[in-house]
Amino acid sequence: MGSSNLPLDIAGLQSRLRAFAAARQWEPYQTPKNLAMAMVVEAAELVEIFQWLTPEESAAIASDAARHQHLGEEIADVMLYLLQIADHSGVDIAAAVEAKLVKNGLKYPAP
Amino acid sequence: MGSSNLPLDIAGLQSRLRAFAAARQWEPYQTPKNLAMAMVVEAAELVEIFQWLTPEESAAIASDAARHQHLGEEIADVMLYLLQIADHSGVDIAAAVEAKLVKNGLKYPAP
Amino acid sequence: MGSSNLPLDIAGLQSRLRAFAAARQWEPYQTPKNLAMAMVVEAAELVEIFQWLTPEESAAIASDAARHQHLGEEIADVMLYLLQIADHSGVDIAAAVEAKLVKNGLKYPAP
Amino acid sequence: MGSSNLPLDIAGLQSRLRAFAAARQWEPYQTPKNLAMAMVVEAAELVEIFQWLTPEESAAIASDAARHQHLGEEIADVMLYLLQIADHSGVDIAAAVEAKLVKNGLKYPAP
Repeated sequence: MGSSNLPLDIAGLQSRLRAFAAARQWEPYQTPKNLAMAMVVEAAELVEIFQWLTPEESAAIASDAARHQHLGEEIADVMLYLLQIADHSGVDIAAAVEAKLVKNGLKYPAP
Repeated sequence: MGSSNLPLDIAGLQSRLRAFAAARQWEPYQTPKNLAMAMVVEAAELVEIFQWLTPEESAAIASDAARHQHLGEEIADVMLYLLQIADHSGVDIAAAVEAKLVKNGLKYPAP
Repeated sequence: MGSSNLPLDIAGLQSRLRAFAAARQWEPYQTPKNLAMAMVVEAAELVEIFQWLTPEESAAIASDAARHQHLGEEIADVMLYLLQIADHSGVDIAAAVEAKLVKNGLKYPAP
Repeated sequence: MGSSNLPLDIAGLQSRLRAFAAARQWEPYQTPKNLAMAMVVEAAELVEIFQWLTPEESAAIASDAARHQHLGEEIADVMLYLLQIADHSGVDIAAAVEAKLVKNGLKYPAP
């Protein structure tokens, strides 16, 4: 895959995901509770890719094109549900991430 | 929380997470396999918030300040591991998300 | 479905699972770490059955033959990995369960 | 640790868990959907024990008394929710396990 690592347009993606769900009449299913369940299912599908790999094989996953493609899809699936959970529960992801980084810095002081 | 929903600076966050881990000599632990395990643990902590809530209570989570704060932290935790998995396995998240949205559009055609 | 709910022969099943793995030369993969990953993957597949169901639909799952069959398979999958984790790490499941029930009784005293 | 590995009294444990929940008025929360969420949360807590361990450290977990004790508790937690899911959805665990072993034998024929 690429190496651009462009910023993620949180608000734009959330808006597109809302429209996608509305067009399919999925709104009644999209409670934060249900979206959290769907997210952990995708998280486990990502784990499944690595379950029988050695640490070394897991570190070299970019050299296996099929597995690497699969990993990208599972990362995207977790991300899409994470965006929807945040949207449907009013969490600002970028702000939450910054707050967590501050908290982690206090919890694990640099030596 | 806020309503700005600023874009997420993927590359910048990945760089900061690498520096954070390096300063704590965590690199040997950060295989994609281990990071995937840590990610599903955080995903389950997010699920835990909702496990005994009714659908209605889950939809109204923003009205419970303590729970909403907790949810923001768990969303951030999943996001931080997702960013690290992508970084350590060479996945471009924004590109993977766009590719998955195309795939989902084909899998679930709008009626 | 059945209603016998016979006791589960832990030692016998663990012995059969060891023979099954040995015959397929799977032993090198069966570390407790890898088995734990496989177990959470199966646990999430069980969650997937319920992710879009209402509480009422989930409570009535026995009335949907296909879904009920699927649920039985996922319960079995989680159980089989749980038995293998215990076997490969020297945990006596029946004893651990009794100890946990005592602990839960202290943690949540009856009113 | 122990080495007895006595059979697990499925029906007896399910009956005790029902009484435990009833005494605490937890029944309204115990839908199969909610119990499945609670189960995957415990499954992830078991995964957490192993997340930063090497394969070798995970295989030697019995030699670390505190970690081994913790593992036994998490195995018990997953088991207790698995028993309750089966009970509340009418699945006979021993029968489901036997059926799955037959299916696995067909899916992965011995060489």
